[in-house]
Amino acid sequence: MEAERVLREDEVGRLAELAAQLRVDAIRCSTRAGSGHPTSSLSAADLLAVLISRHLRYDWADPGNRANDHLIFSKGHASPLLYAVFKAVGAITDQELVDTYRQFGSRLEGHPTPALPWVDVATGSLGQGLPVGVGIALAGQHLDRLPFHVWVLCGDSETAEGSIWEALDKAGHYGLRNLTAIVDVNRFGQRGETELEWDLDTYRRRVEAFGCRAIVIDGHDLVAIDEALGRARQATGPTVVLARTLKGKGIAGVENQPGWHGKPIKPEQAEQAVAALGGVRQIQVTGPRPEPAPPAPAPDRRPPELPRYDKGAKVATRNAYGDALRALGARPDVVALDGEVSDSTRADRFAEAHPDRFFEMFISEQQMVAAAVGLQVRGYRPFASTFAAFLSRAYDFIRMAAISRADIALCGSHAGVEIGADGPSQMGLEDLAAMRAVHGSTVLYPSDAVSCAALVAQMVDCTGISYLRTTRGGHPVLYDNDETFPIGGSKLLRGGGPHDQVALVGAGVTAHNCLAAADRLAGEGIESRVIDLYSVKPLDSQRLLDAVRDTGGRLVVVEDHYPEGGLGSAVLEALADLAVPAQVCRLAVRGLPTSGTPAELMDQAGIGVSAIVTATRDLLARTS
Amino acid sequence: MEAERVLREDEVGRLAELAAQLRVDAIRCSTRAGSGHPTSSLSAADLLAVLISRHLRYDWADPGNRANDHLIFSKGHASPLLYAVFKAVGAITDQELVDTYRQFGSRLEGHPTPALPWVDVATGSLGQGLPVGVGIALAGQHLDRLPFHVWVLCGDSETAEGSIWEALDKAGHYGLRNLTAIVDVNRFGQRGETELEWDLDTYRRRVEAFGCRAIVIDGHDLVAIDEALGRARQATGPTVVLARTLKGKGIAGVENQPGWHGKPIKPEQAEQAVAALGGVRQIQVTGPRPEPAPPAPAPDRRPPELPRYDKGAKVATRNAYGDALRALGARPDVVALDGEVSDSTRADRFAEAHPDRFFEMFISEQQMVAAAVGLQVRGYRPFASTFAAFLSRAYDFIRMAAISRADIALCGSHAGVEIGADGPSQMGLEDLAAMRAVHGSTVLYPSDAVSCAALVAQMVDCTGISYLRTTRGGHPVLYDNDETFPIGGSKLLRGGGPHDQVALVGAGVTAHNCLAAADRLAGEGIESRVIDLYSVKPLDSQRLLDAVRDTGGRLVVVEDHYPEGGLGSAVLEALADLAVPAQVCRLAVRGLPTSGTPAELMDQAGIGVSAIVTATRDLLARTS
Repeated sequence: MEAERVLREDEVGRLAELAAQLRVDAIRCSTRAGSGHPTSSLSAADLLAVLISRHLRYDWADPGNRANDHLIFSKGHASPLLYAVFKAVGAITDQELVDTYRQFGSRLEGHPTPALPWVDVATGSLGQGLPVGVGIALAGQHLDRLPFHVWVLCGDSETAEGSIWEALDKAGHYGLRNLTAIVDVNRFGQRGETELEWDLDTYRRRVEAFGCRAIVIDGHDLVAIDEALGRARQATGPTVVLARTLKGKGIAGVENQPGWHGKPIKPEQAEQAVAALGGVRQIQVTGPRPEPAPPAPAPDRRPPELPRYDKGAKVATRNAYGDALRALGARPDVVALDGEVSDSTRADRFAEAHPDRFFEMFISEQQMVAAAVGLQVRGYRPFASTFAAFLSRAYDFIRMAAISRADIALCGSHAGVEIGADGPSQMGLEDLAAMRAVHGSTVLYPSDAVSCAALVAQMVDCTGISYLRTTRGGHPVLYDNDETFPIGGSKLLRGGGPHDQVALVGAGVTAHNCLAAADRLAGEGIESRVIDLYSVKPLDSQRLLDAVRDTGGRLVVVEDHYPEGGLGSAVLEALADLAVPAQVCRLAVRGLPTSGTPAELMDQAGIGVSAIVTATRDLLARTS
Repeated sequence: MEAERVLREDEVGRLAELAAQLRVDAIRCSTRAGSGHPTSSLSAADLLAVLISRHLRYDWADPGNRANDHLIFSKGHASPLLYAVFKAVGAITDQELVDTYRQFGSRLEGHPTPALPWVDVATGSLGQGLPVGVGIALAGQHLDRLPFHVWVLCGDSETAEGSIWEALDKAGHYGLRNLTAIVDVNRFGQRGETELEWDLDTYRRRVEAFGCRAIVIDGHDLVAIDEALGRARQATGPTVVLARTLKGKGIAGVENQPGWHGKPIKPEQAEQAVAALGGVRQIQVTGPRPEPAPPAPAPDRRPPELPRYDKGAKVATRNAYGDALRALGARPDVVALDGEVSDSTRADRFAEAHPDRFFEMFISEQQMVAAAVGLQVRGYRPFASTFAAFLSRAYDFIRMAAISRADIALCGSHAGVEIGADGPSQMGLEDLAAMRAVHGSTVLYPSDAVSCAALVAQMVDCTGISYLRTTRGGHPVLYDNDETFPIGGSKLLRGGGPHDQVALVGAGVTAHNCLAAADRLAGEGIESRVIDLYSVKPLDSQRLLDAVRDTGGRLVVVEDHYPEGGLGSAVLEALADLAVPAQVCRLAVRGLPTSGTPAELMDQAGIGVSAIVTATRDLLARTS
């Protein structure tokens, strides 16, 4: 493979034929489906024809080959083109393409997902494929040290997303010479012209200012494309190929016209277009294959030597996160990322011990989560941390990561009003609701350092999105170092006999408040059970069932979170699914918090010790 | 006021004295509080001294004056400096500053909020103040047509957020000559050096590539600052002043040293620093005042002539959103924004009728929400729309908007699996959970066009964040045009007598599925009540109470949403708060959806008609 060599005329002809096939197939499958984005596919067909024929080193029969290049359609709506590529390389049949695209039960979904073995991540929320590509490239260049290349096809519209610039910034910062973004500048978005239309020079200046090399080409000039992609592969840093293209290229009356985004071509017009493009072809292209890579290192999954804490000592769970993460770092597949607050989240403890596997993402939470997704594409186990409040910045990325079937661990520190003086902008108060609603997620909220460390150790092997909520302040260690804390479990902190009158259910800081309230209630002759519901999702239904049975269904659930969708709702959902009647009193943060001490703010919010005592008394009075 | 004139020596001396006071006061209040960010304040003290003395046109006695300039601390952690400014202009006393900063009950919170009348919006989640400033500037230049200027103090660390580049891009696109960002380039973030440190040239190139003028200065040179701010005010487009500064400037041993972010100076060192800076001062500065503005136009709040629909006709609620929004546009304070999908959300119907009050934000949902927040600062009633799934991109902005006490209306279209073939990346399936958890939010999910239009009309006067979820497909109009749909209400679609055996509770598309299920159940001799819970938050508790009473507590709640935190949880929370026992069966989307037809996907998810019938039968069998 000599990418630098100028193409011979017959090679150009073959590429043009392949491009025509990609166009024809993109039209056929979307017309048949009656939906989809053929015009967004046609603009990029020449780019892909050259890429897969001459530059993408990929063993289509072995998508798990660790030496394979990566191909990401950041403009996921161009799925007709991607699937036409899969047909052209022999990965899928023409029949699957045309008969199943967008049909129920098909793996050829409207936007690509990893239901297909050649798709690393789901795309379709714009501006995400490139940030994920940065993560894959980080892995290749800084961890795997393999010569694979990451090729990302971007739309021009999606460059309006700030996340694209976070990605290019990080690509430049980390000098990712193995990353090439190809921007299909067809100048039309969904509802009309893009902001920059064909102002390629402004694109170029932006790209260069963000630390990447820009190559501006005519995206329909096969020779120019070939030369640009060859240069990109040889580059010493990240490259952005800015390709001026025509949307709908190849269909008379549609090409370069507005009003054609996301619209399939009507059957009759499609037939004409296919004919004009030379008809249906069954070209099979054999592109370059990767050099064989050395075998992957054998997994080294020794159990970590977790930190140990003295019972009763005041230790913040965020400290335990850092300690446990550092210990987990003994496993070479564990990597960590942080959004420039590692001294607060305590991810810096990992960074100090394992600097080569720590990636500083500065203040770009979207890119941080996307990089984590990219790193797990390459088999790493990423832990990404910032304040719980600021993970909300990346919510769309977390949502998409779930669709990508990504296995990533997230840690949100500084949860709730407990943080005190910094005020509401820094308080995670919606995170339990948001993270619980992520498909297939695991949500953990430990109350002490021992349980926190034990949960971090389990997150490393968790499937899907796992989320750990940590607390800013130091609170007493509640558990012995040898106790176990299975995900989906809970702990009985007090009581448990058949005569408990009420169960106080907390997690994180409120478990401590529940304990103190139980003390006070005991002084009044009220026997309460205290449950530490450290696993918010999945939830320990049996523990709730027992509590309902023993207490006559009296539960007080206390959370440092807004009252919607959090711990209280998780309990209510579990009880509803168990179909057991109960009287659940929910204490949560109902007002807008301000600054203050943690105790002042918890008292004001009605989640402090006095509020729990009062609510319990009221519940007992109401139900006795 | 002649900003261009070079400062006389005595004026420079007075500015230096003021800057010293700002530094002294920032140190004093944070040392007294025992927390806060003095060093991030000191780097920007000279910038603010010049700004408030000579450029910011503000009547501090009348913060509601519509001719006032706007001052936003995008780096909200520099609140000691902001509050020191408020003292210097006489807005607060020295005592309030020093005695109450960060204390419980104080309006001088750790990060600024509109608890203070001179603060437009809450900041503290970085990268948000500038995007909001863009919205305020949009209002000033394109709607108010008033000569006020928007000054935004940014940190250098926050330029890593993509949202900053979304903001500068839009500032350039809309030619906002009334916007100046002042970037305090002190080269230190929280945990160490920033990505670009003092590479002012790269900052400059980025800013210019994004369509703004850059002015690079020494941020401690009072004359240079004055000249730059003067030029910025006179500019023909947006300006970014890039000020090279020293973090902790003015404190020996702290200035320009790492490790001092977010740390108050210890009392003894603070005393020395204050002395070295010349001691405590009580300078009162009188800066320029705005020219009197013409009085605001009288509010024109005529009730809109809402669209009317034929009962039984199939109309998508997203269409009703567009129709109603267009009608609402008769009110001159109503403005709309969209994220480049207005032909899908149907916001284009507003744009066609009222092009001067429609702002295309292209694909930058963060900037879209921030611009809405900025527009409401100026008294407008913004409606911002995109796919429900993509509003998740702006979740941190929505969270912060709630802390800003902003009144904005959001519309998320394409909710749930109902969208069909486009697949899960385009499906809003977490939005009810996420939006419900926003403080003070209103969450609406109408099932038909009539109710949708009626709700849109009420959103215009809603306090806080209101969210409307619309459906892609056309479903039958259920209601007469004259019916009312109060927020917090619900509708009885079927049944209602004391012999109903079960209540089927839906919203949006599932209300239709519930109706069809009720038909089938009636055929089996099962009498069911159907409730359209169009107001998800607040919820119609009385309707639930009645249903529980009449049906023996049998409820089937059906939602096109993941099972956590959505409609089912809202019902459970309401019932728990009412302390009425019930048997609630929750049908929700539990798997990861794919492509397919709406009916196929709803059936697969178990929220279709058959699933409701089966679940109802099971519930009756279990509870009879």
